Amino acid sequence: MRKELTGVFAPIATPFDENEEIAYGHLRENLTKWARTKLAGVVVLGSNGEFVLLDSYEKERLIEFVRENFPREKQVIAGTGCESTRETIRLTKRAAELGADAALVLNPSYYKGSMTDAALRKFFFDVADASPIPILIYNMPRSTGINLSADLVISLSAHPNIVGIKDSGANIVQISEIIAGAREDFAVFAGSGSFLLVTVLMGGVGGTLAVANVLPDHCADIVSLAQAGRIQEARELQLKILPINAAVTTRWGVAGLKAALDMVGYYGGPPRRPILPLGEKARAELRAMLEKLGVLAR
Amino acid sequence: MRKELTGVFAPIATPFDENEEIAYGHLRENLTKWARTKLAGVVVLGSNGEFVLLDSYEKERLIEFVRENFPREKQVIAGTGCESTRETIRLTKRAAELGADAALVLNPSYYKGSMTDAALRKFFFDVADASPIPILIYNMPRSTGINLSADLVISLSAHPNIVGIKDSGANIVQISEIIAGAREDFAVFAGSGSFLLVTVLMGGVGGTLAVANVLPDHCADIVSLAQAGRIQEARELQLKILPINAAVTTRWGVAGLKAALDMVGYYGGPPRRPILPLGEKARAELRAMLEKLGVLAR
Amino acid sequence: MRKELTGVFAPIATPFDENEEIAYGHLRENLTKWARTKLAGVVVLGSNGEFVLLDSYEKERLIEFVRENFPREKQVIAGTGCESTRETIRLTKRAAELGADAALVLNPSYYKGSMTDAALRKFFFDVADASPIPILIYNMPRSTGINLSADLVISLSAHPNIVGIKDSGANIVQISEIIAGAREDFAVFAGSGSFLLVTVLMGGVGGTLAVANVLPDHCADIVSLAQAGRIQEARELQLKILPINAAVTTRWGVAGLKAALDMVGYYGGPPRRPILPLGEKARAELRAMLEKLGVLAR
Amino acid sequence: MRKELTGVFAPIATPFDENEEIAYGHLRENLTKWARTKLAGVVVLGSNGEFVLLDSYEKERLIEFVRENFPREKQVIAGTGCESTRETIRLTKRAAELGADAALVLNPSYYKGSMTDAALRKFFFDVADASPIPILIYNMPRSTGINLSADLVISLSAHPNIVGIKDSGANIVQISEIIAGAREDFAVFAGSGSFLLVTVLMGGVGGTLAVANVLPDHCADIVSLAQAGRIQEARELQLKILPINAAVTTRWGVAGLKAALDMVGYYGGPPRRPILPLGEKARAELRAMLEKLGVLAR
Repeated sequence: MRKELTGVFAPIATPFDENEEIAYGHLRENLTKWARTKLAGVVVLGSNGEFVLLDSYEKERLIEFVRENFPREKQVIAGTGCESTRETIRLTKRAAELGADAALVLNPSYYKGSMTDAALRKFFFDVADASPIPILIYNMPRSTGINLSADLVISLSAHPNIVGIKDSGANIVQISEIIAGAREDFAVFAGSGSFLLVTVLMGGVGGTLAVANVLPDHCADIVSLAQAGRIQEARELQLKILPINAAVTTRWGVAGLKAALDMVGYYGGPPRRPILPLGEKARAELRAMLEKLGVLAR
Repeated sequence: MRKELTGVFAPIATPFDENEEIAYGHLRENLTKWARTKLAGVVVLGSNGEFVLLDSYEKERLIEFVRENFPREKQVIAGTGCESTRETIRLTKRAAELGADAALVLNPSYYKGSMTDAALRKFFFDVADASPIPILIYNMPRSTGINLSADLVISLSAHPNIVGIKDSGANIVQISEIIAGAREDFAVFAGSGSFLLVTVLMGGVGGTLAVANVLPDHCADIVSLAQAGRIQEARELQLKILPINAAVTTRWGVAGLKAALDMVGYYGGPPRRPILPLGEKARAELRAMLEKLGVLAR
Repeated sequence: MRKELTGVFAPIATPFDENEEIAYGHLRENLTKWARTKLAGVVVLGSNGEFVLLDSYEKERLIEFVRENFPREKQVIAGTGCESTRETIRLTKRAAELGADAALVLNPSYYKGSMTDAALRKFFFDVADASPIPILIYNMPRSTGINLSADLVISLSAHPNIVGIKDSGANIVQISEIIAGAREDFAVFAGSGSFLLVTVLMGGVGGTLAVANVLPDHCADIVSLAQAGRIQEARELQLKILPINAAVTTRWGVAGLKAALDMVGYYGGPPRRPILPLGEKARAELRAMLEKLGVLAR
Repeated sequence: MRKELTGVFAPIATPFDENEEIAYGHLRENLTKWARTKLAGVVVLGSNGEFVLLDSYEKERLIEFVRENFPREKQVIAGTGCESTRETIRLTKRAAELGADAALVLNPSYYKGSMTDAALRKFFFDVADASPIPILIYNMPRSTGINLSADLVISLSAHPNIVGIKDSGANIVQISEIIAGAREDFAVFAGSGSFLLVTVLMGGVGGTLAVANVLPDHCADIVSLAQAGRIQEARELQLKILPINAAVTTRWGVAGLKAALDMVGYYGGPPRRPILPLGEKARAELRAMLEKLGVLAR
């Protein structure tokens, strides 16, 4: 039986050691901690997992490892989008074999001029046709330079194996249009913590959020307060996490996320190059933010 | 006593006759109708009022005429932003003399490279210092090519005569950051009907909305339902007006707005050149939308 | 007889005194100096003339004054583009009466969504039909946020009263396409000194250049060297003026231009607000550039 | 002895059969034909080679195959840029082992917010330090969403193993600034055929051009005519190839390039998915262009 797609997911960081090799031991410890939170599941090989910096072998091993080290009753979603349709299909099938509950599929973007709606539709339909597991669309304009329009997403929602979207575009109008136009049970997830509450209030089912690596329960509480109609409390929590959300996304990206993980008691470690580790000044500012929230590790 | 800045305002269209002259008679009739709706007030000389197509004399006469023909207990806000500081100050003072309750001030934008935060801050402070009436900031990146950042707006909110913002940027994260960071009573208005509900739910006070020309009560109801905690009903109404909101803004602009006014029983008439009137095909599509909403004039 | 449209034009700065009033005496002195250079003419009311910061009366008076104080055998082109078609036509006719040889017409840009190719074509044709003097198209995407495409410009070149373009888009491919596709005698001017040489080598007739306020003879020499086939010398001169060209355009805009004018022996004076005067640090850097070129006034 | 980096290079298409497998036989035939042209060499694994759609094994095999099937005295440059520094270094070293004369290195771009000038400088320096062969920077803003600024490129030119740039940004001002500021023997290549002539006239050494797949001798002639001072002839040729250059780049991309190859007597074949093959209407337009140029295969 398919697990329900709802709630807050953390697109987890991939921990590296000082030689830029995957630190599986640290990953296991992180997973154990995340398992004790209110997270509905994790996404392995998302943008925050530095998936474009990993080779094929590492990608498969990571899916397998995360699935093995995370409770069965919680979901593991695997990021499987690649530039070519064939490699995306191959990795998606492999993710299914390795136990992923769903695949989060980023659109190809290098050949922007060729990525017309027709090409993107065929890409997603080809992948969805071939995939043994449900597909979540991943819209990430800030990285890809392409925005999947509401009209395109609505037309993709007609495919029975395309079950939802993680929209990181921060465009609440587009998110509203998707909710208004897609099929009834199409699952819309906020792609960043800064618009989690409004996404849920407009009819979204939750979020897949970098900041959920660091503040999983804060994020989950925003969703449950909103669903309980406790808007005022949800809003206060939402406004409170805005600075730390920006710190681990638009301001300092993966470097900020990993530094924050180190500060709150998870293993963050260094990013893989070309991403530079966070500088000292930014680190001090980040620490102050986390202290203000009362979440610094002792 | 200053009237409370809250609720829904219509940035009204400026009616022209077939020779592109202002049709004051039709304007009076429109104002009479808007006065009977749930609107908190109107904005004269907004983007939807084609203010950049009007000369100085027309601008002053319009402020005067609207104030004279709209109920005293309802607010009239005048758009007074010009490229030069001196002309903006002159027109703002004149608007005050003519009875405007507040001025909506668009930032200069032609010399984009020179419009640093320092230059913009000085511009707004110069105007606010000189103005006898409260200033509302107008952020309209789609037209100006400049986005007033949350940090800038928060710093502007320190001026006692800068009382709020109409933010047409459609960026709910930025709107949330402004609400979190600006002074307590800073009034944040959604600048378009498509993000009215989420703006109010995040702590905004209402909207200044093109679509409020056409659907004033629908818009006012979204605000009051949200404030009453009736989220589900507010959401349904919000999702319902998305297509018509797009039609009179991003899709067809002023031409769409004027065509819609004609269809729902107000006077729309032709836009002033260089804006072309709406074509027949778009007109038919617009009519179908309005019919679906049940608001076509008999 | 129409004067030939070719060579280098300076879109002249509008001098202000410390109260932001137009300093006509200083303007006369500047014009006298420019008249002794190799400039083919001047443009009054261009972007560098802060035309959007001037009122209607000032605009007309400036055209008249510049025409009266600049040699008859040299050309005076007036910038007459406004947001509305009617005001553009009015000012263009007035410029003709006041003795302007041609009008440089910027496209309207506030209602970007409505400025389709059809709307822009009608705008330029309406103005060209009504104008007693030849029209030069002014493409200035950095300020307007709109690029007039090669296809559009080529179609506009079919009008007998549209005689050329000042293209400030810095896109040499587009400029090449216009030269390839427009009617034979369509005059293409570089809109900034940084691509003057390549524009002329591809078949353009000259430039209308902010930097020509400050370095009129350098600019004129680039054109004449290129036309004489002395490419190597032209290239050296072109590369040499790149930093100062950037200083008075993309880097520091009108504030940089006015500071440079002061330094090379013209009157620059302060910009009109909201433009801030150049800061001390930038001023020192600018002075060093001009010193290196050997053009500082003693 | 290092071969001289100058002249025109074709970033060759990767031919696929109907099952999307690499068609090595067709590739060999194409290489034989290109070897008879005036091309200085080829680039394997460029954007036109669909390099992001190939797996690691295919990439290495292609470098090897092209080197083996292309005359020793002509150059083979391998595209080796990947998102991670480590994989870029690995592939660059491998390319050297397989006989590539130089590596064309695209910057990482997925984590745009993290790709500061400092991060990009470290990336290129890390790769250049580790590479046994010279490095050419590859600036491709249209695909990456990142422009390598003139200042950055100039600073990179200080590294002895960074010998030049293929700049596809179409910004002749930036190209001029690089030529003015980089070390004397830094090789600047136009990255598209539409600005080949102006790049060479400003001091560039040639081009690496999609259109050189289809019209290798036309492109080489533009360079040699320019170098011989025959500007008028060079210009005519340059203007003549603009439409077909656009067809195989900005308009129809790889699909257009492959269709054109089929039409002029090379093997083009289908692109790999997600790129869709060129539609019938575009194909007819393309054929007409090639016919007009007189280069259709009999």
